[in-house]
Amino acid sequence: MSKKYVYMFAEGNASMRELLGGKGANLAEMSSLGLPVPYGFTITTEACTAYYDDGERVNDDIMAQVKESLAKLEEQAGKKLGDPANPLLVSVRSGARASMPGMMDTILNLGINDEVVETIAAKTGNPRFAYDSYRRFIQMFSDVVMELSKKRFEEIIDELKEAKGVKLDTELDADDMKELVKRFKEFYKENRNEDFPQDTNVQLQRAIEAVFKSWNNPRAIFYRKENDIPYSWGTAVNVQMMVFGNMGDDCGTGVAFTRNPATGENKLFGEFLMNAQGEDVVAGVRTPQTIDQLKEVMPGAYEDFVKICDTLEHHYHDMQDMEFTIENEKLFMLQTRNGKRTAAAALKIACDMVDEGLVTTDQALMMVEPKQLDSLLHPQFNAEALSKAEVVAKGLAASPGAACGQVVFSAEDAKEEHAKGKKVVLVRLETSPEDIEGMAVAEGVLTVRGGMTSHAAVVARGMGECCVSGCGDIKIDYENKQFTIGDRVYKEFDWISLDGTTGNVYGEAIPTEPATISGYFKRFMDWADERRTLKIRTNADTPKDAKQALEFGAEGIGLVRTEHMFFEERKIKAIREMIVSSTVEQRRAALEKVLVLQQEDFEGIYEAMEGNPVTIRYLDPPLHEFVPQGEKEIVDLANEMNMKVEDLKAVISELHEANPMMGHRGCRLAVTYPEIAEMQTRAVIGAAIAVQRRHLDWDVVPEIMIPLVGDVKELKYVKDVVVKTADEMIENSDVKLIYHVGTMIEIPRAAILAGEIATEAEFFSFGTNDLTQMTFGFSRDDAGKFLNSYYDAKIYEQDPFQRVDQRGVGVLVKLAADQGRKTRPNIKLGVCGEHGGDPSSIEFFHRVGLNYVSCSPYRVPIARLAAAQAAIKNSK
Amino acid sequence: MSKKYVYMFAEGNASMRELLGGKGANLAEMSSLGLPVPYGFTITTEACTAYYDDGERVNDDIMAQVKESLAKLEEQAGKKLGDPANPLLVSVRSGARASMPGMMDTILNLGINDEVVETIAAKTGNPRFAYDSYRRFIQMFSDVVMELSKKRFEEIIDELKEAKGVKLDTELDADDMKELVKRFKEFYKENRNEDFPQDTNVQLQRAIEAVFKSWNNPRAIFYRKENDIPYSWGTAVNVQMMVFGNMGDDCGTGVAFTRNPATGENKLFGEFLMNAQGEDVVAGVRTPQTIDQLKEVMPGAYEDFVKICDTLEHHYHDMQDMEFTIENEKLFMLQTRNGKRTAAAALKIACDMVDEGLVTTDQALMMVEPKQLDSLLHPQFNAEALSKAEVVAKGLAASPGAACGQVVFSAEDAKEEHAKGKKVVLVRLETSPEDIEGMAVAEGVLTVRGGMTSHAAVVARGMGECCVSGCGDIKIDYENKQFTIGDRVYKEFDWISLDGTTGNVYGEAIPTEPATISGYFKRFMDWADERRTLKIRTNADTPKDAKQALEFGAEGIGLVRTEHMFFEERKIKAIREMIVSSTVEQRRAALEKVLVLQQEDFEGIYEAMEGNPVTIRYLDPPLHEFVPQGEKEIVDLANEMNMKVEDLKAVISELHEANPMMGHRGCRLAVTYPEIAEMQTRAVIGAAIAVQRRHLDWDVVPEIMIPLVGDVKELKYVKDVVVKTADEMIENSDVKLIYHVGTMIEIPRAAILAGEIATEAEFFSFGTNDLTQMTFGFSRDDAGKFLNSYYDAKIYEQDPFQRVDQRGVGVLVKLAADQGRKTRPNIKLGVCGEHGGDPSSIEFFHRVGLNYVSCSPYRVPIARLAAAQAAIKNSK
Repeated sequence: MSKKYVYMFAEGNASMRELLGGKGANLAEMSSLGLPVPYGFTITTEACTAYYDDGERVNDDIMAQVKESLAKLEEQAGKKLGDPANPLLVSVRSGARASMPGMMDTILNLGINDEVVETIAAKTGNPRFAYDSYRRFIQMFSDVVMELSKKRFEEIIDELKEAKGVKLDTELDADDMKELVKRFKEFYKENRNEDFPQDTNVQLQRAIEAVFKSWNNPRAIFYRKENDIPYSWGTAVNVQMMVFGNMGDDCGTGVAFTRNPATGENKLFGEFLMNAQGEDVVAGVRTPQTIDQLKEVMPGAYEDFVKICDTLEHHYHDMQDMEFTIENEKLFMLQTRNGKRTAAAALKIACDMVDEGLVTTDQALMMVEPKQLDSLLHPQFNAEALSKAEVVAKGLAASPGAACGQVVFSAEDAKEEHAKGKKVVLVRLETSPEDIEGMAVAEGVLTVRGGMTSHAAVVARGMGECCVSGCGDIKIDYENKQFTIGDRVYKEFDWISLDGTTGNVYGEAIPTEPATISGYFKRFMDWADERRTLKIRTNADTPKDAKQALEFGAEGIGLVRTEHMFFEERKIKAIREMIVSSTVEQRRAALEKVLVLQQEDFEGIYEAMEGNPVTIRYLDPPLHEFVPQGEKEIVDLANEMNMKVEDLKAVISELHEANPMMGHRGCRLAVTYPEIAEMQTRAVIGAAIAVQRRHLDWDVVPEIMIPLVGDVKELKYVKDVVVKTADEMIENSDVKLIYHVGTMIEIPRAAILAGEIATEAEFFSFGTNDLTQMTFGFSRDDAGKFLNSYYDAKIYEQDPFQRVDQRGVGVLVKLAADQGRKTRPNIKLGVCGEHGGDPSSIEFFHRVGLNYVSCSPYRVPIARLAAAQAAIKNSK
Repeated sequence: MSKKYVYMFAEGNASMRELLGGKGANLAEMSSLGLPVPYGFTITTEACTAYYDDGERVNDDIMAQVKESLAKLEEQAGKKLGDPANPLLVSVRSGARASMPGMMDTILNLGINDEVVETIAAKTGNPRFAYDSYRRFIQMFSDVVMELSKKRFEEIIDELKEAKGVKLDTELDADDMKELVKRFKEFYKENRNEDFPQDTNVQLQRAIEAVFKSWNNPRAIFYRKENDIPYSWGTAVNVQMMVFGNMGDDCGTGVAFTRNPATGENKLFGEFLMNAQGEDVVAGVRTPQTIDQLKEVMPGAYEDFVKICDTLEHHYHDMQDMEFTIENEKLFMLQTRNGKRTAAAALKIACDMVDEGLVTTDQALMMVEPKQLDSLLHPQFNAEALSKAEVVAKGLAASPGAACGQVVFSAEDAKEEHAKGKKVVLVRLETSPEDIEGMAVAEGVLTVRGGMTSHAAVVARGMGECCVSGCGDIKIDYENKQFTIGDRVYKEFDWISLDGTTGNVYGEAIPTEPATISGYFKRFMDWADERRTLKIRTNADTPKDAKQALEFGAEGIGLVRTEHMFFEERKIKAIREMIVSSTVEQRRAALEKVLVLQQEDFEGIYEAMEGNPVTIRYLDPPLHEFVPQGEKEIVDLANEMNMKVEDLKAVISELHEANPMMGHRGCRLAVTYPEIAEMQTRAVIGAAIAVQRRHLDWDVVPEIMIPLVGDVKELKYVKDVVVKTADEMIENSDVKLIYHVGTMIEIPRAAILAGEIATEAEFFSFGTNDLTQMTFGFSRDDAGKFLNSYYDAKIYEQDPFQRVDQRGVGVLVKLAADQGRKTRPNIKLGVCGEHGGDPSSIEFFHRVGLNYVSCSPYRVPIARLAAAQAAIKNSK
């Protein structure tokens, strides 16, 4: 028996998301709840995989099942696709497992041809509607299926409007629509060397293929990468009987949320357009009415809708984002899904739903995407500067937050300028899915057209990015790269600021400030802290960072990079003196100068951390990083150092390495120059003693971390220096100080031999950055040159430096953790690579049983939530 | 009960080598065979380990056991250490598990003090002997135990000789010796601030400590590294009753081999000195008599010795190297061990012993050190050039082979000039253990003094290095760095040639030629081939190398580095054209030019290999290796390429990478530029088709190897290009061609995911060079800077690029091999890193169950023997 590739809506349910995609599963679920859903069927994601496996064709088996299901649909609808007497029209829409709004393609009104259009005109008595539907179909079909230029179709419409002297599409009458159909078909024929297909079965098959194909378009690829969606999932295709919002003034279409997706307020939120098709709302071309107004326009439909919203929220235990169409006053549901929302809204909704008894705290914790919290952590405008700033324009508060950057007018420019290190604000008439990459790199987005559910608004909220939309005060002149507000002109690269919470636009740069955790945020994070078992530490090199992290909930420092302190002016001089030393004595003398300053640094960090544990990594980078490379800087340094220029150049050239990543760095420095490890120990222990003495109620327990270890003997060699130095200092002091010595596990060999290394190491901290570099053989600095080709070829879909590679690097992490615990059951295990702040990686580290992850201060709340979610997911 | 640290000779046997060291175990074995061995005991290697564990001191337990054993020895000897009435003298000598001739320290005549010396003088009636023994003891004790300058003692002797107007030590009389003792003791006191120790127990304890300490002297460290001896083994100490070869004219001492160690001839071979102590023979100061002459001088002792030689050879089933002393006509055996021998001798002895029924072929195979064969494979003098060359001097044929190089006069200079890339011949009056590193890097060694068993001769034979010793025609003038032969002057850096097989010295450079395998060598290698299960392939990039390897017994090519061919003038131009291409079309056009030339290369290699398998690795190095870096070369290239200099510079700078080892190279090039893989496939398959058509009786089966793979999808992506191209070509040809596509396993991730990779790879070839780099995180180009510190600190004892790191890298190799076979039971597994030619690594690869190793042509015979030994060792 062949595999089942097609399911009628009546056959599916919400749990079949993997097979039917999100949209298909929810349409099925709504059907079985008895909600008014137009009949239809779903072609599975497995059919999509088969499509690609078969070299991008839909095989006969699948098409046979489609035909069978179509027959059932025709029976349910009482109409037949392509039947000139009683024609069925359908929509063909994508629907992946995870929601990917606007990323893939949709075709409406499929089933119209030259005969059918006449039947519809006759049956509805509305020839304008019939031909409008036909021209929309040709337009979408040509764009999606045949990849003909969208732009040319719009030009044809514009030409006609100009000839007629009208401005709006709505001003075109039935004959105009007929004319458009004619011109569209001509354009189609010119370009495709065939007539526009009249066979409705051909229309359907090509549309299905086009949706499968759209799974692999550049927008979809980018979106998947941004959202960790694997290529292998594929998309389902939903074929559904059309209902029409554009059949007259008792028709309409809209989108709505059960709660406010920007603020979380428990109140219906949405928009609709009378006499329109769905695309008109989303595209933001006409400005729609709010959902409240529907109450007055069509009270019956409104009442039905409110009931359905309530049913859906209780059914799904989450805020819903819905599409609906009203055809001759009858309400149809076209989609429901858990709604995207701002982080602030997400937190309020989660707390409210717990209070309403709608969800448990565990369920509430699972409702918020950890990465989203980021938007709450980033700087807000400085209140004083804000109070003095002049509001030059006002738009819709489409996505909250503060943005400040230089104006650019295209997504391309945004990417280019961002790559140069500029902060940019993207200013557009409206945005479209093609703009998504440019939006991602911009600080904020400002659009002239479009409402709260316009593309710009939806995408920006999804990204946690500030957005002001529908700001009609602005006139954009793309050609001259400028915009005007009244008589003021803003040119490309002028600074502006956006407040996504108020919709205010400022014609200047406004300084920003760090965020704090309070209110719903705090309550929610408290639940997360109760639930998680992983401790969250931070990577911080300064008292300021340490303080910030503590405020964000860090429970210690997992990584102090001592070398970051070396660049401070007084220190760098002594460090350079050390580097150019030719004897141990000279080196010691230079190190003596560093010692005093480094001890101060450590005291500051211990003070900031208030007795929480602090892990200090010993000098890691190759020494050449501390000497200048430019001619002038070298001459200056030589003068400063009282050296001959050529001698200094010889030292610098001696430090040059073919592959510095794998060169003389990490504990290799301590093996060749044990006096460096000795100095650092004196600074760490000296600082700890001083701070412990000042705060007798704290437990100052330094954790000394030896980097780049590959063998237990290597660790022991450096540890012996540390222990000898530290024990002597402690013995001579008046405080009792406990300290630990551990190691990074960041070299594959260390992971393999972790069992032995644990005989000396009291803790392991996985340096997954370097471990990833060496396990893949990728130089992080160079991989950019070829990784794009790898993404294109689907060899890798994720940047392994962002998200830990569980199948490769993860095997080494697990091996090392297991072996380490075998040798030393109470060994402390943590992660201090950048993966420590990545939610999916955090789940992996939870499963491996690490004790903590350490991440940058701004990632701490994200990590706290991700750790809680990991605990919830893995307790089931 | 405490551990047993001391064994009387009567308690041990030959199988206790690990505990008693080689010397101790063999002394015990000879004792139990009833041979005349002076009484004694051995302090175990475990005591040495304890010595280092206890911070370089001999603990009380060990000393207590030593005293107990000393008491037994005193009872056996009927004398007491330090007893003025009846004094026992002992030797204290090192003896590690593996023979380390001359590397550690020996003290003779221990037990003499101011009283004892008088007793000896009185008892022997030979005061000269008594005081000679005393001054020797002071000299050795001071050098070894107290680290006083050896040189100063010799100066004191020279001063006395000058004052007396004599030249030879033997011309000094008893009073002179007494005077020397006085002066030595004064020098000792001046420098040590104490009298020379008169307490014989103190003498003994310090001597034991000194021997343990000598385990860690620089010479010993170097020797261990050269010979793969672990630091952890430690040395044993042998304390043995002295017998005296210097007590008069019925005394003597000598060293001998049961067969000729230079030629293998089955005839006693050795030397002795009358009225001398052992050190006099080895030092090469007096020229000794041959062992044959002993027959006439002392027929009784000679007859005894011949019998003992026969007994020992039959007992040990190997050629023996022995030390003996004759005291008042009575023969004593002081040592026996398997004798070091030249490679030629080793092969003859192995074959002879099989023919004599003394050993099996398996035993014979185990008798030859694989690395030793190297000396037989290296070029010999060109016969014609040799016939025209003038012999300017003649010495002893101490170690066979041909050497040609520039004259240097010290081991230091040899190292220095060798490091600059020069070939040097080391010319010395005589060599001493301090010279060992300089000898190792020299092409050959020429000494003025010393016989066939002098230090220079023994060490050179061990190294397989050409040596001419005892060349008295030469007068060396160290000060002016020159030597003269008659009236001809040879200055530093003049070219000379040495023939170690004849002892001839030539005052010119004589060209050399490759060696062949025939005679004993061939017979022996045939046994090896029968015994081994590992196939031996070669790494070869040219038909010439391939031919050479085939002659040395290679069974295929394991690695053709295609890029090595790219540097040929016509090709490099096209390659550079490809690199500067900015479109796929330009790149294809340039590659088209490379294709023709590359196909020619491959045809040449297939022809040379006569149907044996050939594995071709696709382009591996980063592209920047093909473009010039110097200013002038860049300008030239730009002109040649018709480009602007700044454009070319931009391309070159674009190619620059921070860590090229982990950058855009290997199959990453084929992923970004699939057209390169396509071109290489066309060249490989085109060449294979052409050669197959010319030789219908051959099986030309190309093995296409994709480098630097880290994921199965990556391999599949490149393989798809290969297969599509190849299948099309084969289909359009008139021959049936089978080909295989496989991968290197050289990235840790590939080893971890080898099970998946094997679904696509038909073979794995372990690239242990890169795998070592990435598993250790060592850049091979940079590790030199810090690895010496690691050797000093005993963190690593072996260069992991020479000898595969079984504990780390080996784990990945085994994992990948196991997983690969699990997925694809008939997968072919090989090694093409440099470890493929290292005997200890080969044993590991045998155990892991690889199918073949591939190494450079000159290593092929070594690998064949190592593989046979691995099979023998692991069949037990």
